[in-house]
Amino acid sequence: MFPLITLTTDFQPGSPYIAQMKGVLYCRVPDVRIVDVTHAVPPQNILFGAFALADTMPYFPAGTIHVAVVDPGVGSERELVCVRLGKSADQTQTVLCPNNGLVSVLARKFPVLSVNLIQNPALFSETPSGTFHGRDILAPVAAALALGVPVSEVGEAVGLERLVSISIPEPEKTPAGWRGQVLFADSFGNLTTNFTRELVPNPALVTAGAKTFRFVRTYADAPAGSLVALFGSQGRLELAVVNGNAQEILGLRDPQGLLADCSE
Amino acid sequence: MFPLITLTTDFQPGSPYIAQMKGVLYCRVPDVRIVDVTHAVPPQNILFGAFALADTMPYFPAGTIHVAVVDPGVGSERELVCVRLGKSADQTQTVLCPNNGLVSVLARKFPVLSVNLIQNPALFSETPSGTFHGRDILAPVAAALALGVPVSEVGEAVGLERLVSISIPEPEKTPAGWRGQVLFADSFGNLTTNFTRELVPNPALVTAGAKTFRFVRTYADAPAGSLVALFGSQGRLELAVVNGNAQEILGLRDPQGLLADCSE
Amino acid sequence: MFPLITLTTDFQPGSPYIAQMKGVLYCRVPDVRIVDVTHAVPPQNILFGAFALADTMPYFPAGTIHVAVVDPGVGSERELVCVRLGKSADQTQTVLCPNNGLVSVLARKFPVLSVNLIQNPALFSETPSGTFHGRDILAPVAAALALGVPVSEVGEAVGLERLVSISIPEPEKTPAGWRGQVLFADSFGNLTTNFTRELVPNPALVTAGAKTFRFVRTYADAPAGSLVALFGSQGRLELAVVNGNAQEILGLRDPQGLLADCSE
Repeated sequence: MFPLITLTTDFQPGSPYIAQMKGVLYCRVPDVRIVDVTHAVPPQNILFGAFALADTMPYFPAGTIHVAVVDPGVGSERELVCVRLGKSADQTQTVLCPNNGLVSVLARKFPVLSVNLIQNPALFSETPSGTFHGRDILAPVAAALALGVPVSEVGEAVGLERLVSISIPEPEKTPAGWRGQVLFADSFGNLTTNFTRELVPNPALVTAGAKTFRFVRTYADAPAGSLVALFGSQGRLELAVVNGNAQEILGLRDPQGLLADCSE
Repeated sequence: MFPLITLTTDFQPGSPYIAQMKGVLYCRVPDVRIVDVTHAVPPQNILFGAFALADTMPYFPAGTIHVAVVDPGVGSERELVCVRLGKSADQTQTVLCPNNGLVSVLARKFPVLSVNLIQNPALFSETPSGTFHGRDILAPVAAALALGVPVSEVGEAVGLERLVSISIPEPEKTPAGWRGQVLFADSFGNLTTNFTRELVPNPALVTAGAKTFRFVRTYADAPAGSLVALFGSQGRLELAVVNGNAQEILGLRDPQGLLADCSE
Repeated sequence: MFPLITLTTDFQPGSPYIAQMKGVLYCRVPDVRIVDVTHAVPPQNILFGAFALADTMPYFPAGTIHVAVVDPGVGSERELVCVRLGKSADQTQTVLCPNNGLVSVLARKFPVLSVNLIQNPALFSETPSGTFHGRDILAPVAAALALGVPVSEVGEAVGLERLVSISIPEPEKTPAGWRGQVLFADSFGNLTTNFTRELVPNPALVTAGAKTFRFVRTYADAPAGSLVALFGSQGRLELAVVNGNAQEILGLRDPQGLLADCSE
């Protein structure tokens, strides 16, 4: 069957760097199928990239290889890792990325079967640049794996504790409910919070940035312009304006970290 | 031959939701070819999406399946439909979308051969979310059709009159010519009007927003900075600034509905 | 093996025109693989497109066909050309584009093996529009080449001197080092200059727009917020702000042509 490789980067849509990575893949694996997860990760925003990867991977078939490049430490001594995860040994997918937390949201959702450092220069491009390891190291290694090179040839197997983890703020209990925060905004200006359906199954009102959002099941439950809170397709509570842009209405340039209170 | 499925959404370029839909398709149809028509439909702008679909479909081969998700009513009682259209019975393409007018521009251009409601949960994802029917219902149904499931299994066949239509404003005759309006802007800031080549084969001047645009055959016919009107590749008259941005020059945040007068 | 065709345009990500070109390709070459190099070339910016093409092509396999559409002269008498380049006769790639300089950066990097005008209407769409030759002429001709039509059928072979060249400003020697300029900004706001690693192997400080940028080997060599100059993955010196946006910090709407002084 055709090998499937996905790309997640902060290069922004339309960057020619994306096509360079694809060229590298096509040179080595002519029948590869390449899927863009997103190239709109805000520059250097590892948390956003980690959620994009974690939200997308479950929809892909076993055997898919995911290359993720949000890499503020490129050229430093930071490691590159090859991580295999999945519900079972015959249902694994592979993530290749800097060891900076990009895979850590995924690693909390799915059992990690192995972690290998990416160390074998025989699998890299001939003269890797100092600033673009996505193209010169990760893409060629992904191609090698797609062609059947075993993970053990990529580099040393290390323990799971070697994976760098990013902290995801957790909501705290308050007298009236929970205090959480905004994790990031999506392209509609909807604000994703750290309230999950498991934690707060029946929210009532959410307040954030001096505005109040009413809980609804779906956008169609409130008229245009209403401030609403609803569970997104990933099970996290989102603050939104029906047919509008919550980020703009709250006047937020960077909504990350905005405190939010949720009553039940 | 390889099944071909296109995606038209208002998710905006780079949204991970697009990749989730692609993952669903690749899980079910490993050799599918997926083409992005556009993900830059302005949020909830059904008219824009309807034109994008109608302008693109004629360039695709028979058998193509188009999934379109501009869906402000998701989670409400609005229907989902499976529409087959084409010049002849052996030259059909299929559109899967909410029944909210998205397919209605296309349905005026091409004979509609059948309309089926999308009702058969056996074809959906196991537990469809309330907010993302594109991924959980339309993509799996598109995959089923690509694998040969007959349209009759998708849901009840209904009459063509069941399709929700959106009104497209028509130009009106004036003493000096025609009064029309701007339908939408494209990514260059060119303003697409509802004047068509059929209606006004020989326009002279177009005035809109207190500016005058001179009719030209092609951009190269006028110097940089000129305000021009010309027939776009879809046969609709567009207002443009040579090497510039008409939307910005007219100071329009939302140009939709701006009145335009065309003399002959 | 599967034919590989890339697209480079100034249509902007999400434009339905891109999908129309892809539909034309899939109709003619059902097993084609299409790669987007970029659709984010700033409108009519031939220099940006020429560099995108020159930076990307080397990563693609022999036989790849590149279609490039940055075409302010569409509909005028400007020519369309089919250019074969490559290190050797069995390692060629083909570029189809307007003869306006788009291929000229590439043509300085790689030997040009042949130039043919694109003249044979038998290979075009049936009724080409006056404004969209990318879809109606270049895409069908690319499909024909992918199917094995020889270049000689595309149109008259002409000499290499027929190719329109764009001037790329060269840095000039100054008492303290070199004076160059900014060629364009990328999507991070990094400013690409015309200083190359060959010309200035050991830069010290770069000044531009009344700011000073310190030379570093990699982003990780300086703290967040630092103004740095470093060689990008293409070997050109870039001005950047660590984890920031140099274009914004310099307050530049259009950074092209900004003078820069580099000391050694």
